[in-house]
This record gives sequence, structure tokens and C-alpha cells, in this order.
Amino acid sequence: MYQRILVANRGEIALRVIRACRELGIETVAIYSEADRGSHYLSLANEAYCVGPAKASESYLRIANVISAAEVGNVQAIHPGYGFLAENAHFNEICRSCNIDFIGPSPEAMAQLGDKDAARKLAKKAGVPVVPGSEGIITDPEEALRFAHEVGFPVLIKAVAGGGGRGMRVAANDLVLKSALQQAQQEAEAAFGNGAVYLEKYIEQPRHVEVQVLADSHGNAVHLWERDCSVQRRHQKLIEESPSRSISQETRLEMCEAARRLILTANYVNAATVEFIVDKDGKYYFIEVNARIQVEHPVTEMVTGIDLIKQQILIASGEPLPFKQEDIVHRGAAIECRINAEDPKRKFQPSPGKIERLIAPGGFGVRFDSHAHSGYVVPPYYDSMIGKLIVHRPTREEAISTMLRALAEMRVDGIKTTIPIHQEILSHSAFAEGRIDTTFVERTFGAD
Amino acid sequence: MYQRILVANRGEIALRVIRACRELGIETVAIYSEADRGSHYLSLANEAYCVGPAKASESYLRIANVISAAEVGNVQAIHPGYGFLAENAHFNEICRSCNIDFIGPSPEAMAQLGDKDAARKLAKKAGVPVVPGSEGIITDPEEALRFAHEVGFPVLIKAVAGGGGRGMRVAANDLVLKSALQQAQQEAEAAFGNGAVYLEKYIEQPRHVEVQVLADSHGNAVHLWERDCSVQRRHQKLIEESPSRSISQETRLEMCEAARRLILTANYVNAATVEFIVDKDGKYYFIEVNARIQVEHPVTEMVTGIDLIKQQILIASGEPLPFKQEDIVHRGAAIECRINAEDPKRKFQPSPGKIERLIAPGGFGVRFDSHAHSGYVVPPYYDSMIGKLIVHRPTREEAISTMLRALAEMRVDGIKTTIPIHQEILSHSAFAEGRIDTTFVERTFGAD
Repeated sequence: MYQRILVANRGEIALRVIRACRELGIETVAIYSEADRGSHYLSLANEAYCVGPAKASESYLRIANVISAAEVGNVQAIHPGYGFLAENAHFNEICRSCNIDFIGPSPEAMAQLGDKDAARKLAKKAGVPVVPGSEGIITDPEEALRFAHEVGFPVLIKAVAGGGGRGMRVAANDLVLKSALQQAQQEAEAAFGNGAVYLEKYIEQPRHVEVQVLADSHGNAVHLWERDCSVQRRHQKLIEESPSRSISQETRLEMCEAARRLILTANYVNAATVEFIVDKDGKYYFIEVNARIQVEHPVTEMVTGIDLIKQQILIASGEPLPFKQEDIVHRGAAIECRINAEDPKRKFQPSPGKIERLIAPGGFGVRFDSHAHSGYVVPPYYDSMIGKLIVHRPTREEAISTMLRALAEMRVDGIKTTIPIHQEILSHSAFAEGRIDTTFVERTFGAD
Repeated sequence: MYQRILVANRGEIALRVIRACRELGIETVAIYSEADRGSHYLSLANEAYCVGPAKASESYLRIANVISAAEVGNVQAIHPGYGFLAENAHFNEICRSCNIDFIGPSPEAMAQLGDKDAARKLAKKAGVPVVPGSEGIITDPEEALRFAHEVGFPVLIKAVAGGGGRGMRVAANDLVLKSALQQAQQEAEAAFGNGAVYLEKYIEQPRHVEVQVLADSHGNAVHLWERDCSVQRRHQKLIEESPSRSISQETRLEMCEAARRLILTANYVNAATVEFIVDKDGKYYFIEVNARIQVEHPVTEMVTGIDLIKQQILIASGEPLPFKQEDIVHRGAAIECRINAEDPKRKFQPSPGKIERLIAPGGFGVRFDSHAHSGYVVPPYYDSMIGKLIVHRPTREEAISTMLRALAEMRVDGIKTTIPIHQEILSHSAFAEGRIDTTFVERTFGAD
């Protein structure tokens, strides 16, 4: 086992990793930018090194500085957390060349899964459904119609060089498809100088459901059930929960098994999340693999009782998984609300500054993961999350009640937070009834 | 179900009851003394009334004031918490005469169990072992010897009018017993003007193990397993845990069943704790019943997943228990540390005052039940507990690691707390190995 680990991150996830290390009896080396000097999480590490100025590109993202801290700190391994260098295959490779274990997948597995096309091919190889697509450029309207009839309307026309919705059209029937194809080609040509488009089945009322997987270096892999992350705003997850109300028990078992198969096919080692999109009929399609621990991992920890960060560390050190698939029992319902320093009344613009007083929520069924405290100054340089509020109760209904109670008692004086929007969402009948897709927040509370 | 409940308490337990009510959709009326004006828990209640000056005898213990608040607040029930009026049968009776449900047992059951002799008789009737005693005054040395030979040495000689250890002697053999009997009689005569003494079997290396029971008004009763509260200082519990390491699985099942039988025999309704003393050979003896919720109830909540405060409320409102004995599964290991505003370096003297900054512990497996927060002033008038730190992990070893991690990250600036003594106890090999009896803290860390 490792004696000493560097945590190549800041804030909530740095604290999370330090907590796991302390419980495992592993020493930690923390890093910080000038903006994070004096943070509480640093005092819980055995050592802490400054890696540069406030800007992430000059500190947390600067590989040479992070590696220097690891060398000076004399660590055997680096935990990257999420964000920053967590999915940087180059950093991962440098760690290897420095004989420092990267607590995550190999650089090769990371690179393969980071390539969307390669990941899609891998999914097909593993027999995991992907969103049906035209497998290449479509120029001829007849070809487009053939594809649409094969997969069923509606279909989505996307520019190969696309981005930001330009050159994108939804078509619900033959007539619309013919004209939309031409429009999309012209728009793509105008926008990108490249009129090439392809077709995909359009997923209506999409739900985001993902499966947590753990795989060790001995060829074992298990899934830890699913998380539903359909409550999003501008593709940012706001609320995550397990189990998902978007899928049947049959689909659930099938999806979780598919995720495990995919990870085994990729010869992937460590924690991964396999993301799926689920359509209104409950059919699921693979989207991508996140080759890191995710923000919402506590949801899975609550319902399975398994500490995912500790498992990541044990796997990286060469330990076999201490459980088999049948040992992983899903109990109760867990919900996580991301508490961000943002002003929901002002288009969710960041609200950095000093937290004059923080009263943390507590009591039965409540977990609060946060690096913030009374007197903490939220810097304007990084992502705005100041804490994750997680509840775990026997039923979803009880979990919602407990979350509403916990949100009501939490106090964050001095800055604006997303607490009010969470209260609105959790009190909404659509949430209570599980009638949620990824467009819910914008449809219900406005795009801004 | 109730629409509105008065919480006849303050601090941590008032907040605990308010949380449960909020989650059940029940409105709450809080009360406060002048010293507790402006407390955070009051803002979480729907209404709050001042019941008098700081001194408890003029506020929280003043029955007329509490009942007035209940009348003005128009509540259907009162939850007494623990301490103050929680085991006052007279108050309980007055609630009944005012047509307000007392969330606890009937005044009759409370009075019966409050009488130690009556409780002992009840235990015998239910076939629950009690500490063998002489059943009356012993004057004759021959009679004393007969008793000692019957129950086995050592025996304890206690003054009928006794208290504070005076007139008390331990005897380990015939010779000592004869002389000790005379000494005890003389000392008792001198101290209390009453030389009458009786004999009890002396329990060596005693462990304190208690069983949580719930009984409804439909004749159903279940036990929720045991708590070990052997870590005490001057008969004050410091650390509680479940399961107990002091008893075998066989004894455990027998004890838990005995507790349930006792509560059924007493026709007791609501939550109760049946306290036992366990000797060094693992034999258990009934001591008393606590006819209220206890400080350490979260330990049981963690390992069973059952919210005891909600169950108390549901039972009082006439609901049948929603589970049977076989549904109550004990999972993992839970430990609670009582965080008191006391100075362990100064004979645990109270350390009231302003908490300049409180950083609550958090993360996986950690529950913190506390009414305190940054800026909170701990008043000098009441008990010194400022919070309960509870952990729950799959094994006791992991629970100890998590507790040590949580204690290390907690910050309470401005006052002294019992955090350091908890760290010492939890790091001690005797605690790790479960070699703990109620004399452990004083033997190991000194009487003061």
C-alpha cells in the first residue's frame, strides 16, 4: 500500500481524497494556488505546496509544477480528483515516466475513451447500444430518407464540423427531412466552410442515466448501479440521484451489465462512469465514458455503502476488488444537490466572496461534503461549487423530505447560492413524480 | 396525525425533534429561555415562545409556562426530548388533563418504572435477571455470609439511606465480610443516623449495555438491538456504540429479547431504553428503564436505518409499528462521541462562551447533530453538550478510523471541548480491542 499520496486538486474533492487517505492511514501532500493559500483542507494534509498563481492554467493545470510537488513530497501516487488534470492522458503518461502511480486508468485507456469515435466503436464491439447514426456523411436526400425510415423519425441532422447548434436540424417526417437537409448543408457551409452533415436518431425527452463501474488490475469488474442526472441546466448537472426513476428494473439490470461489459472490453482499470441517454420509451444508448471519479460519486456511496475513493486507491496499488458483483446491494434512495456560489436570480452568474457565516446542515440521513466554512472566501477563479448536500433515506419520498429539510436549515451568509433553485425543483410535482428529462429545468424555470 | 407539536426542550434535542417534524410535514412550536433567545433552532420552528429566565427551574422546568406555550401555540402534542420534564410523571399527567398528547409513555408506566424497586419487581416478573440482592435489611453476620455464599463473592454492602459511597463496602471473602458489615453499619449510622444496610452481588469490571425498544398502543413491541455505553466518566456517558463488544451473540439475542419482554410486561407504549450491567463473564443484569428518548439514540438509528423520533411521534398518534421484529436488521458499526463544552485539562469544568468559528466535520459515514454554529454562545446554565458526532461504517475498525478523521477536522474556536479526550480514548489499544468497562476512563486518564 501507498505511504504517501499527492492530491492534485483543490476544494471539495481535495478534501474528499484527504479524508479517505486519513482513514486508510496514508499521508497526503496537498497543493494550492496562491488563491487557495490557508484553506482548511490544506491543514488536514501532512504537507502542502504552492504550485503557482491563482489562474488554474498557471497552477493546478501546470503539469511541471504538480510533478515537482510530487517529487519534493516524495509520494508514490497522485490522485487527480475531477476536472483540471484528471482526464489528461499526457499528465497520466508523465506520472508513469516519473514512476508515480496515477490513481485512475492507464494513459492508453484514457486516450481511447477520450476519443468519442473510438469509444463508440468499443461500445459496439461490447454489444452496447449506441445512438443510431448514419456512419458517415450524407449528401443525398434519398439516403437520408432511407436512414430515417430505418431508425424511425425524428432524426437529427448534424454538421460534421459543427458546434453550438449551427448546421443542426430536427426532422420529424419525409417532407421536413428533405428541406432540412438542404438548409443544414447550406448553414454548415456558411458557418464552417464545410457543408458535410450526418444523421442521428433524435432522442426525445432525453434522460441522463449513468452507471458507476470499478475494475481492478486482476480482470475483475463490478457495476455499482446507476445514477440519474437528468436535472441539468445548460448541460451542468444540478441534482443527481439513485435509483433512477427513468428506467424499468429490467432496463436497469441490462444497462448496468452493459456498462460493466464495456469496461471489461476496454481492459479499463480503476473507477469509471458509463454515461447513457435514455429515451421516452426507456430505451438506452451509450454516450461516453468518464475516466475519473465524478462529482456525484457520493450518491453511489450512500446506496451501496462502498467508499469509491478508497477503492480507487486500493485498485491503483494493485489490490483485487474486495467484493463480487452479487455483494453489491443497492439500499434506499440517495439524492445530491450541488450547492454553487451562483445567483439563480441573475442568470446563475458566479457569486464569489466571503462566506460570513456557514451553518452546515446535519442530522439523520444527511451528508455534507464541503471545503467551505464560516470566513471562507470563495475565489472567483475556479468552478463555483462550494459543497455537495447528499441525503440517504429508505425511500425516494423520504429522501426528498430530508433534502428539503436540510436545504431549509442551511445558512450561507455573504454570498448567493443555488439553494433556492434546489428548493423549487425538489418541491415541484414533476420532480416528485419523476417526470424529468434534461430539458426540465430550462422548460420550467426559464433558460436563464 | 398531528398538525402541530410543541418541543418542550432546547438545543440539540429540540433541533432533532424539529427536523423530524419538518420531514413529517408537522408544524412545530419551540420554547426558549431568555438565555436561548435568537438560537438557530428557533428559526426552524413555525413559532417560538419565551418561557422564562435563563435558569431552567424558572423556564424549561416550569410546567405552567410550558403548558401555556402549548395552549397558545394550539398544539396537539408535546415532545419532551430528554432531561428537563422528559421523565416527570406529574407533567405527563397535566398534559393528559389538558388533552395534549405526551409523546412518551403514560404517566402510570412512567411512575412505575421511575420507582427502582417497582421496576426490579417488574423485571423479575418478566423473567429478566436482576443483580442478586438480599431483599431487605441484613443485621446478622451469619445472614450476610449465607447471602454471599449463595450469590458468590465479591459482594457489596450498601446503606439503605446511602449515597455518595458512604456506608458502602466491597467484601471478597468471609473474613472481610464480617468486619466490613460492622464498619458499614457504623459508618451508615454516623452518616445518615440509620445503620441499616443490605447486600448485593458486586459486579466486577462492569459494562453498561442497553437495549432500545419501541412499543405501540396496539400491543406490538420490538427491540432495536443494543448500545454499549461503557465509556463513562463519573457516570456520564462519553462514547456510545453499537454493536457491543462486551457480549456474545447468544447473550445479545437473549438480552434484547429480555428487554422487549420487560416492556411488554409493563404495558409500556413508546420508546424506552432498558439498561443492563454486564459482568466480566458476560452475564447481564437489569438495572433500570429510561422512559424517554436518549442522547445516544442516533447510534441505533444508524445501524437500523430507523428514525426513532419519527417513530415516537407516530406511536403517540396511535399508529401501529410499521415493522416487525424480523424486519429490523442491524448493519455495520456506529459510534457516537459527545462533544461537550468542557476543558478536559481542567477536571472537565464547563467552558461556556462564544464559539468564534465552528467547522463541522462531514463526508462519508459522518453525521453531526448540533445546534451550535459559528457565533453561537454556549450559555452556562444548561448541560454542556454542544453536539453529537456519529459515524457509521461497515466495521468497527473502519468506524474508529472515520471517527478519528472527523474529530481531527472539526474546529471549535473560542471555547474548550472534549474533542481531545475522545481522540485519546479512540486511539487507545483497550478501546480498539474492546477491553472497556465503566471504570476505564478514570483508571486510564485519572479521576479528574
